[in-house]
Amino acid sequence: MCTYQKLRAKKEAAMSELKSKFLEVYSILKSELLHDPSFEFTHDSRQWVERMLDYNVPGGKLNRGLSVLDSYKLLKGEESANDELFLACALGWCIEWLQAYFLVLDDIMDNSHTRRGQPCWFRLPKIGLIAINDGLILRNHIPRILKKYFREKPYYVDLLDLFNEVEFQTAHGQMIDLVTTLEGEKDLSKYSLLLHRRIVQYKTAYYSFYLPVACALLMAGENLDNHIGVKNILIEMGTYFQVQDDYLDCFGDPKVMGKVGTDIEDFKCSWLVVKALECANEEQKQLLHENYGKADQACVAKVKELYKVLDLEGAFAEYESNSYEKLRKSIEAHPSKAVQAVLKSFLEKIYKRLK
Amino acid sequence: MCTYQKLRAKKEAAMSELKSKFLEVYSILKSELLHDPSFEFTHDSRQWVERMLDYNVPGGKLNRGLSVLDSYKLLKGEESANDELFLACALGWCIEWLQAYFLVLDDIMDNSHTRRGQPCWFRLPKIGLIAINDGLILRNHIPRILKKYFREKPYYVDLLDLFNEVEFQTAHGQMIDLVTTLEGEKDLSKYSLLLHRRIVQYKTAYYSFYLPVACALLMAGENLDNHIGVKNILIEMGTYFQVQDDYLDCFGDPKVMGKVGTDIEDFKCSWLVVKALECANEEQKQLLHENYGKADQACVAKVKELYKVLDLEGAFAEYESNSYEKLRKSIEAHPSKAVQAVLKSFLEKIYKRLK
Repeated sequence: MCTYQKLRAKKEAAMSELKSKFLEVYSILKSELLHDPSFEFTHDSRQWVERMLDYNVPGGKLNRGLSVLDSYKLLKGEESANDELFLACALGWCIEWLQAYFLVLDDIMDNSHTRRGQPCWFRLPKIGLIAINDGLILRNHIPRILKKYFREKPYYVDLLDLFNEVEFQTAHGQMIDLVTTLEGEKDLSKYSLLLHRRIVQYKTAYYSFYLPVACALLMAGENLDNHIGVKNILIEMGTYFQVQDDYLDCFGDPKVMGKVGTDIEDFKCSWLVVKALECANEEQKQLLHENYGKADQACVAKVKELYKVLDLEGAFAEYESNSYEKLRKSIEAHPSKAVQAVLKSFLEKIYKRLK
Repeated sequence: MCTYQKLRAKKEAAMSELKSKFLEVYSILKSELLHDPSFEFTHDSRQWVERMLDYNVPGGKLNRGLSVLDSYKLLKGEESANDELFLACALGWCIEWLQAYFLVLDDIMDNSHTRRGQPCWFRLPKIGLIAINDGLILRNHIPRILKKYFREKPYYVDLLDLFNEVEFQTAHGQMIDLVTTLEGEKDLSKYSLLLHRRIVQYKTAYYSFYLPVACALLMAGENLDNHIGVKNILIEMGTYFQVQDDYLDCFGDPKVMGKVGTDIEDFKCSWLVVKALECANEEQKQLLHENYGKADQACVAKVKELYKVLDLEGAFAEYESNSYEKLRKSIEAHPSKAVQAVLKSFLEKIYKRLK
């Protein structure tokens, strides 16, 4: 093996060790939640919750959760005490729980079929709309975890406020998305880069990018009011991440991603369609208006063909390298090397991702 | 008018003044939420949320919300400062928001048609499953209200913990209800007074009875750990309230209640069916097993007929007067006259209610 390959193999081994430690914490948290003294479980209901958790919480990439741990280590140096690392994992899992809660409910609202390569939870026999309440249960686990492990910490109230604010923002981002997409009119003229940015920022960036770092900062004793700059960089990065997502929905490899994109059929306010509207001539706009948001595969093919003609692949490559450069510069302008390391680690993880 | 009628008229006038003050606070809170700086509303999304709030939040009896104000006045005496009364109203509205959140989602899960004499929110044109996210928005408004008005209070963190714990318990109560009712097997043999009690306690009693008083106690500077006795009385009262609800679902006047009961069709674990199972002979049990939980009106009629034969009306009257006596005694044993007044006020409101 060459040096690069060795380094990469070492990094991957470290990553998988980290992941298995992280998963151990999941088992502990789950077991505590299933014996929470605030509720008297029946045998059936305990079994139900356990199955629901195992199906929905730990099966993703775990990037959001692991990045709390990563970020905390970078902020505090490698000498962190074991119990502090455990707490960072617990916060990471709170974000994974939050994500599971959103996904379970989003899949119902979007009428989706698969998630993470398996049927959506509500599609399983005997589940159906009970999945709505399961989503609430997932959400309600978060403050239980926070209370159990952080009640005596000086930053406990800030943690509660943080999770509340981020959830508020995410639900509102989801709302503009739903209201714009499903209000029946299917009016493409409402779609713009500005609207796209707003949806993405609120629906994805806050909880996926800002929240993990904010958790690590609180644990490291920082006041979040002093880190508005970090927040802005992370929101920017989250926006970039979602643009990638929109791009991959159409141009990615379904086998690599574990799902087949349906943004065109679903009339989504995707970066691709707003970019297309920006570049298209009148005739091409007409084609979009006539074919976007239809389940018919012939319509979908016409939209995809137009995307090719407009060279959206090129436009995306340009957007990607511009974003990367801009983010790199903002990060390097930050006064703290430790914070720089946290932000760079995030950026490297997502740059040119394929899934 | 005789003295009794005069007193009653005076009480009703005071009540309606209280209610209109309470509704003024709703308008203030709503307007603040629609201009929350944590989110950049679009014109459409602000309008959406306003309509959703007006449709779902203020249209109920407002008993839960008003009882925070009532309880706080009884605890502090009538000399309470105006801004403290405003805060009590704000907490009352948080409970009404919580209730709206549960109802919007419950109606979807139960496939209900009407609520408070109008179509369920998700049944309106263009709403559908977006109502799920609307439920989340309602829920997310609560910590925004709490943060705005209580962030600097010494009991802020206790308020957050309280709302979190009560929501956790309610969602879990709802879960046993759903898992028992909908798991497909329709197995009446699982139903018992014990299971009924557990569902009712968690699903209704905590948020409807304990939460309003706990809010008032926190505002009055009390530590909730010192009021476990009060909690137990309120849970008991909430259980009694839900038994009434189950009774009225079958025996109440739909015109008075504003809805037609469907517990029998829906295979609900109602107090009536568990009581019937307790009293029935083998033949009558057989009849229940064959007819309970069927949409067919002939089956419903057979179940209702059996309820009459078993004299469940008599059983309920007995349950009601026993509960009342037991609660009255527990209340009178409480050391504080102010707390006694709070609990009695609750009890008088629900005793022998018709809707």
